[in-house]
Amino acid sequence: MPLTTDRTSTRYLSVNDMVRLVQRTGLPAAIAGVAERIEREFLRWHAFDKSARVACHSADGVIELMPIADAERFAFKYVNGHPKNTRDGLPTVMAFGVLADVATGAPRLLSELTLVTAIRTAAMSALAARKLARRGSRAMALIGNGAQSEFQAIAFRELVGVRELRLFDVDPAASAKLAANLAGQGLDIRIAASTAEAVRGADIVTTVTADKTLATIVTPGMVEPGMHFNAVGGDCPGKTELHRGVLEAARVFVEFEPQTRIEGDIQQMPADFPVTEFWRVLTGDSPGRSHDAEVTVFDSVGFALEDYAALAWVAQIAAEFGIGDMLELVPQPRDPKDLFALLRGAPQPFVAAGARTAALA
Amino acid sequence: MPLTTDRTSTRYLSVNDMVRLVQRTGLPAAIAGVAERIEREFLRWHAFDKSARVACHSADGVIELMPIADAERFAFKYVNGHPKNTRDGLPTVMAFGVLADVATGAPRLLSELTLVTAIRTAAMSALAARKLARRGSRAMALIGNGAQSEFQAIAFRELVGVRELRLFDVDPAASAKLAANLAGQGLDIRIAASTAEAVRGADIVTTVTADKTLATIVTPGMVEPGMHFNAVGGDCPGKTELHRGVLEAARVFVEFEPQTRIEGDIQQMPADFPVTEFWRVLTGDSPGRSHDAEVTVFDSVGFALEDYAALAWVAQIAAEFGIGDMLELVPQPRDPKDLFALLRGAPQPFVAAGARTAALA
Repeated sequence: MPLTTDRTSTRYLSVNDMVRLVQRTGLPAAIAGVAERIEREFLRWHAFDKSARVACHSADGVIELMPIADAERFAFKYVNGHPKNTRDGLPTVMAFGVLADVATGAPRLLSELTLVTAIRTAAMSALAARKLARRGSRAMALIGNGAQSEFQAIAFRELVGVRELRLFDVDPAASAKLAANLAGQGLDIRIAASTAEAVRGADIVTTVTADKTLATIVTPGMVEPGMHFNAVGGDCPGKTELHRGVLEAARVFVEFEPQTRIEGDIQQMPADFPVTEFWRVLTGDSPGRSHDAEVTVFDSVGFALEDYAALAWVAQIAAEFGIGDMLELVPQPRDPKDLFALLRGAPQPFVAAGARTAALA
Repeated sequence: MPLTTDRTSTRYLSVNDMVRLVQRTGLPAAIAGVAERIEREFLRWHAFDKSARVACHSADGVIELMPIADAERFAFKYVNGHPKNTRDGLPTVMAFGVLADVATGAPRLLSELTLVTAIRTAAMSALAARKLARRGSRAMALIGNGAQSEFQAIAFRELVGVRELRLFDVDPAASAKLAANLAGQGLDIRIAASTAEAVRGADIVTTVTADKTLATIVTPGMVEPGMHFNAVGGDCPGKTELHRGVLEAARVFVEFEPQTRIEGDIQQMPADFPVTEFWRVLTGDSPGRSHDAEVTVFDSVGFALEDYAALAWVAQIAAEFGIGDMLELVPQPRDPKDLFALLRGAPQPFVAAGARTAALA
């Protein structure tokens, strides 16, 4: 049984399992591990069957499926975006995802991805900034101090060398929460009275706001030579953060151009507005920042390949640590042409989760 | 806690849970229940945000995501099709699916759908035949005697009144298995030596073959006046079962035209080949069969709305019977803007699955 069970069983990681996993590696190491994996997968850009995500929009939010595959593995993420959720005590963004074998179609990993999305988004942002921001960048403005902001702060401290943070949020309680969460972690933190105050003199400006509106969080008057903008919150049609003048004054980098044209801050721009896909900077195909005074923008929307990379990292670490239970999400009938046999007689016993996890670890 | 838990917790139904659920209702009642639900949802056709499924093709198979939503619920199914799997002791088709709240994005049901796909496919076939086959149809040829064939046989006995079955499969062991599984269930069963022999004199011809090829299981010479063809196995690009002459001689009904043009047997036909979406027959918009000698074809490919209906039925029955465990697939942080807090301190305890299921049932 172990061998056959091994081919259709699905490892399941709950939110609590993921908390244990990240606590064991440590959050900075988790972010660095995911960033390394994203970089590795972006370098294999042409090995992937890529498509823009499938979105279902409703009055208060969006639900999306984000599939991607290479020759070995198929991955998808389910993710929502409902800014009003926080009023009811629910997270704005909730996510889970699956890794499956392309050769057989069997799902092999089902994982919470709410925590992981925050980690991979921050990892992607920091990976881009490491290539695009000025060398020696130390001060970052962090606009939008909600659920993703701690992850961005730690990623930029860890991977970019940021030491000073200037926080701003229209909700002062969010900034206070962020400052408290980051206390004693090697960051010099100041809460600003406005976006303009936070941005003034910063090397890097990260925007992670949640409102589903055509917002102009950053206006041209705030832009200083050499700044790098990490624009994370403008990520679906009708949801932007940068004034178009900021984009016009900058070199703009994106993840997957066809998706970003629809979802990113560049949705405001003509279809021929020049952008560079970031993987080209990693491979050396395209130069990154060309001089210290250049303004750069990473117009991040979140791409399925980042989730593929994160799921691959999670699968590896979970197997190493033996974290998670095994689910019987798909059947393993004795005769695969006899599905009906499952319904005969007593329900078949299923090997206890703990025992199987241990056996597979 | 019960109230808030109730809004993000996800009921999980494993294969074994689904076996228990179907054993409690009985398979005929399950098929009838799903058919009734499919009919109800098809009558609300315009209430749904419909799209063709997203398919990832590889050398040996396909992995698909099938999303759909109305104003209240979002559903998707993950399903593969790998005909070679059976050689390695794995099912050709494996599936699972999710129902989520459109208002919040929270996933509320995660269910195995391999068994359920067989049930809903058979329910859809029988629902169509009940409207399209000649009144008094009693004899059915069943070509392809694999994993779905028992479900088709029982659905047609239950919902259409079929009493005689003529079986054929290129693998004689598959036919023997099907005959054995159906023994003593009120069906007169004969194994035929060829497709032509099985089809001769039948009122209804059901094809559920698995090969991913442009096959011609049924040729024009086999067609008799008044026959109804339930063509289930031709369901993805490059995978058909009916010779184009069969289609030319018939009135053809489909589920969702844009998808069937790509995936159905009509992929062989010009883009303007006339077809009728089956929901129009249910609403009375369009006549079904017009006379006893007319040849009708239901070119079934499987549409997301059928899975939505099946998931809705499963959710209701599972809640009634208290079947399934509750998963912590998405977090319920104390402060939704403070995802980071989940990582502080000891992992939060999660209420035992059994207790929560009982509380929610």
